[in-house]
Amino acid sequence: MSWTVYLSGEIHTDWREVIQEGSDAKGLPVRFSAPVTDHGASDDCGVAILGAEEKKVWHDRKGAGVNAIRTRTLIEQADIVVVRFGTQYKQWNAAFDAGYAAALGKSLVILHRPEHQHPLKEVDAAAQAVAETPEQVVEILDYVINGVLAK
Amino acid sequence: MSWTVYLSGEIHTDWREVIQEGSDAKGLPVRFSAPVTDHGASDDCGVAILGAEEKKVWHDRKGAGVNAIRTRTLIEQADIVVVRFGTQYKQWNAAFDAGYAAALGKSLVILHRPEHQHPLKEVDAAAQAVAETPEQVVEILDYVINGVLAK
Amino acid sequence: MSWTVYLSGEIHTDWREVIQEGSDAKGLPVRFSAPVTDHGASDDCGVAILGAEEKKVWHDRKGAGVNAIRTRTLIEQADIVVVRFGTQYKQWNAAFDAGYAAALGKSLVILHRPEHQHPLKEVDAAAQAVAETPEQVVEILDYVINGVLAK
Amino acid sequence: MSWTVYLSGEIHTDWREVIQEGSDAKGLPVRFSAPVTDHGASDDCGVAILGAEEKKVWHDRKGAGVNAIRTRTLIEQADIVVVRFGTQYKQWNAAFDAGYAAALGKSLVILHRPEHQHPLKEVDAAAQAVAETPEQVVEILDYVINGVLAK
Amino acid sequence: MSWTVYLSGEIHTDWREVIQEGSDAKGLPVRFSAPVTDHGASDDCGVAILGAEEKKVWHDRKGAGVNAIRTRTLIEQADIVVVRFGTQYKQWNAAFDAGYAAALGKSLVILHRPEHQHPLKEVDAAAQAVAETPEQVVEILDYVINGVLAK
Amino acid sequence: MSWTVYLSGEIHTDWREVIQEGSDAKGLPVRFSAPVTDHGASDDCGVAILGAEEKKVWHDRKGAGVNAIRTRTLIEQADIVVVRFGTQYKQWNAAFDAGYAAALGKSLVILHRPEHQHPLKEVDAAAQAVAETPEQVVEILDYVINGVLAK
Amino acid sequence: MSWTVYLSGEIHTDWREVIQEGSDAKGLPVRFSAPVTDHGASDDCGVAILGAEEKKVWHDRKGAGVNAIRTRTLIEQADIVVVRFGTQYKQWNAAFDAGYAAALGKSLVILHRPEHQHPLKEVDAAAQAVAETPEQVVEILDYVINGVLAK
Amino acid sequence: MSWTVYLSGEIHTDWREVIQEGSDAKGLPVRFSAPVTDHGASDDCGVAILGAEEKKVWHDRKGAGVNAIRTRTLIEQADIVVVRFGTQYKQWNAAFDAGYAAALGKSLVILHRPEHQHPLKEVDAAAQAVAETPEQVVEILDYVINGVLAK
Repeated sequence: MSWTVYLSGEIHTDWREVIQEGSDAKGLPVRFSAPVTDHGASDDCGVAILGAEEKKVWHDRKGAGVNAIRTRTLIEQADIVVVRFGTQYKQWNAAFDAGYAAALGKSLVILHRPEHQHPLKEVDAAAQAVAETPEQVVEILDYVINGVLAK
Repeated sequence: MSWTVYLSGEIHTDWREVIQEGSDAKGLPVRFSAPVTDHGASDDCGVAILGAEEKKVWHDRKGAGVNAIRTRTLIEQADIVVVRFGTQYKQWNAAFDAGYAAALGKSLVILHRPEHQHPLKEVDAAAQAVAETPEQVVEILDYVINGVLAK
Repeated sequence: MSWTVYLSGEIHTDWREVIQEGSDAKGLPVRFSAPVTDHGASDDCGVAILGAEEKKVWHDRKGAGVNAIRTRTLIEQADIVVVRFGTQYKQWNAAFDAGYAAALGKSLVILHRPEHQHPLKEVDAAAQAVAETPEQVVEILDYVINGVLAK
Repeated sequence: MSWTVYLSGEIHTDWREVIQEGSDAKGLPVRFSAPVTDHGASDDCGVAILGAEEKKVWHDRKGAGVNAIRTRTLIEQADIVVVRFGTQYKQWNAAFDAGYAAALGKSLVILHRPEHQHPLKEVDAAAQAVAETPEQVVEILDYVINGVLAK
Repeated sequence: MSWTVYLSGEIHTDWREVIQEGSDAKGLPVRFSAPVTDHGASDDCGVAILGAEEKKVWHDRKGAGVNAIRTRTLIEQADIVVVRFGTQYKQWNAAFDAGYAAALGKSLVILHRPEHQHPLKEVDAAAQAVAETPEQVVEILDYVINGVLAK
Repeated sequence: MSWTVYLSGEIHTDWREVIQEGSDAKGLPVRFSAPVTDHGASDDCGVAILGAEEKKVWHDRKGAGVNAIRTRTLIEQADIVVVRFGTQYKQWNAAFDAGYAAALGKSLVILHRPEHQHPLKEVDAAAQAVAETPEQVVEILDYVINGVLAK
Repeated sequence: MSWTVYLSGEIHTDWREVIQEGSDAKGLPVRFSAPVTDHGASDDCGVAILGAEEKKVWHDRKGAGVNAIRTRTLIEQADIVVVRFGTQYKQWNAAFDAGYAAALGKSLVILHRPEHQHPLKEVDAAAQAVAETPEQVVEILDYVINGVLAK
Repeated sequence: MSWTVYLSGEIHTDWREVIQEGSDAKGLPVRFSAPVTDHGASDDCGVAILGAEEKKVWHDRKGAGVNAIRTRTLIEQADIVVVRFGTQYKQWNAAFDAGYAAALGKSLVILHRPEHQHPLKEVDAAAQAVAETPEQVVEILDYVINGVLAK
């Protein structure tokens, strides 16, 4: 069986690559998916494809709609949703994805540094696991899929 | 991953071919599906297979039932439902499909010319994207699937 | 038990009043609901409350969003959804509501004049009953609720 | 019919009172619900009832669990979920609630000041309406419930 | 709390009255519902309200559609669905109702005489209880609601 | 795309073979499934595997349970459920399957001879098509899958 | 708003009374429900109503079916499900109820003494709160409903 | 078609191997899945991956969360859930899994020795089959999948 893991959230560090390379190194049968991580493309996709808008709010609305086609579909197809909160930006879309995934009954893994523990307490409480590093996420996937605890 | 896209609505222009050829030209992993687009077959399938009816209403009812087997199944299997409204006919079945897909939580792309913007406002508001040309739909698919915004 | 009946569609004739008065005259335990039937208010509610837009498309989008709060909630609470198609306008929102209600498994009654039978054949085939007059809808409600066929 | 409206998010200003008083002044048939808005009680409820924890993470986990009993139940019972984002704090639980409500198909109204438009674009795109003031939320409720646009 | 019990199936004996009177005699808080039990009305409701049909199949189709508005709504609202199979007729609609209720997760009580045990074995296996007399159904309701076993 | 079609109901004639051979002759991409059609095995599977019972009712209950593992799973996986009613036996399990499939929203095709039209009217009204011969079912599948009406 | 709380599990101590009296003393708007707590009645209800069985397994099966009508209905209607594990007996039905409620998305409170923490770890992890005493359950209800933390 | 069977419950005997080998010997197209059956790994996975805890309750909570990612995902993907109760330990997680699977509508096979019949009566009543030996489970799979009763 192949597992499908959606990697939501922070797009400014290489945590997705760490998880994917770690998973590949262990030969895990995982198919990863993610939102568009090119910040500029993500912001501008709506107007680039469907026509420019003068007002920023509609510029953003068009883009958010197009991005939602990707994110909603991939979250719905995922067995596990990993959501990473970084140290910058509001990241409300990450928390939104976590709530969306929780309501769909997806297994949820939250990834964040200890200093965000308190503001993320409601999100963490809805998750099956809370990790601090992408390497821990790889270990969770390894254990969950293979059923063996690496020494 | 392969994406499944249902192309609902207007059957008198070649918009489905434009989308499919555009998608193929980009090598997108999309499986397209659609209602029966042979107008005559669609109208007569019920009585041709299950026996003639004198009254038009039952002639049509039989055909609509048989067509629904195809359309409902394919809409339920789709990741994305594209609905095109053309310039002729009532096209209530297209709007019905859009409502049906929306209630199922499908990603919805509406395709119509600007002059229909006002009467389609409720339908558009339920969609993730509103396009004017089939080429834009191809660009949406390219972006949503590959995560890269074509220059 | 009280029944909840949502009256969707055409807003330029008094068919809703005919149904409600007919139902009241029979003392039926029905609570009727409906979209906003003041055409101007329905068009302008978004910008009137949330601020003006220069472009017609966003003027309409804001209004359609606000109206959807009412229509979706009331359709979901309804036992029966009646959708009337009139002789004017595109009425795609009526067909959208019918599709939406059908996907939710609501009982559906379609109300239209005979000349629209062919373009509505898919919508009619998804319905439990197709009526031509609001008086017939009252008779359906009377029979369905009281279980007695009026002579 | 009585409407149920859940007021999620920011707990440091009186926006909930403004909405409730505005609604009462108009005589709207709305039953409001909300999370626990006493910050201290919300933080400490878990350990106060179920026993102290030395580690902050478990102190918070116990509280988040108890609070979730209230918030999940009330969100599921709501017809409309209003989520307000303020100017302070991370407010990830507010965004989580918005995602949770969206996945359940609730009508969603987002309330925030214009400067948060960009980081909230995905959340706003999932909503039926985006307001800037609690008075606008009252106007939305009045229109949605009574079907009349106040002049 | 009030319980809702739908009484489906055979319409030629007084078993519904026996159950309702037995329930009333015990003061059980049960609201009973049922299909239309006037055989003639049930057969003719479609054409009586919506216009005559020459062919029997469409005469019946119209009636079945109208009756389904009542039966589907009431089954969906029921806590318990009781289905009685009598000694005459095909009674396929009774078995259809049982399958429909089972798929919706309703509690199912089947009521039939011992000689029908074998052909009803699949239906009985989907039920929580199989009774032979309406008095037993009353006893089940009494026990299930009051939690006390009558001596 | 491959379609999955469950063939429920009558097990004493070769209608399943006619459909499967007709489908194969046309090269249709259909995977057929069915209940166990060996009457004796179907009756005795429970006690043969899980131990004998003295009372017929429990003999049958055990078998019905085991058979339900097959039938429920296959109906849930089907795109289309075809239910045939023959001329003998009560066939309440066929009608139960039809109700079960209808509640799950499956496309339903009912297959029966004209003399059963009246007692099957409620079942037929829940179906998308009503056929008289297995050859018609093959034609429906051909049309629904290939979108072309055979001349 | 009134809350509905189902009290599942151990039936040999007075924990349900403690919770109900504590709730009443605080004037909480809670409607409690529970399985039949008369052990003998619960064991014998099936045969007492539906006829004796010689084999214990069928004696028990009949009773379990009748009891399930009550327990499933009340669990489905509950906002919160409290499951208590006592010190005696296998109590597999309590754990079954917890799993059933969890899959339905109910808020879950588990009540047990500390020595059962390890064997209940999977059950506890699926719950929003784990209490040791019925008084704590009352405090949880008070806080969750009134939003105020008792000093 | 390939069937997916989840083997829940007791982890101290070789019953899973007996079923898998028996299934392989018959060439059944079954994909088996199971929880982690290494007791130590299952207990310690949480802290081994995510960091040590001083208190046993949080040590266990972390592990239960990680294990739930595996068990919930695999149960949701299963066509059939087999739950074995052994002679030792509380096994509340097994009963929890049975309740969880039942609420999801999975086909359920319970496997236990006769002496546990009474305390498992509610669990057995929710199952389609109750077996005493793993060999019987293999026979059930063979019959259910191949439709032929082995002599």
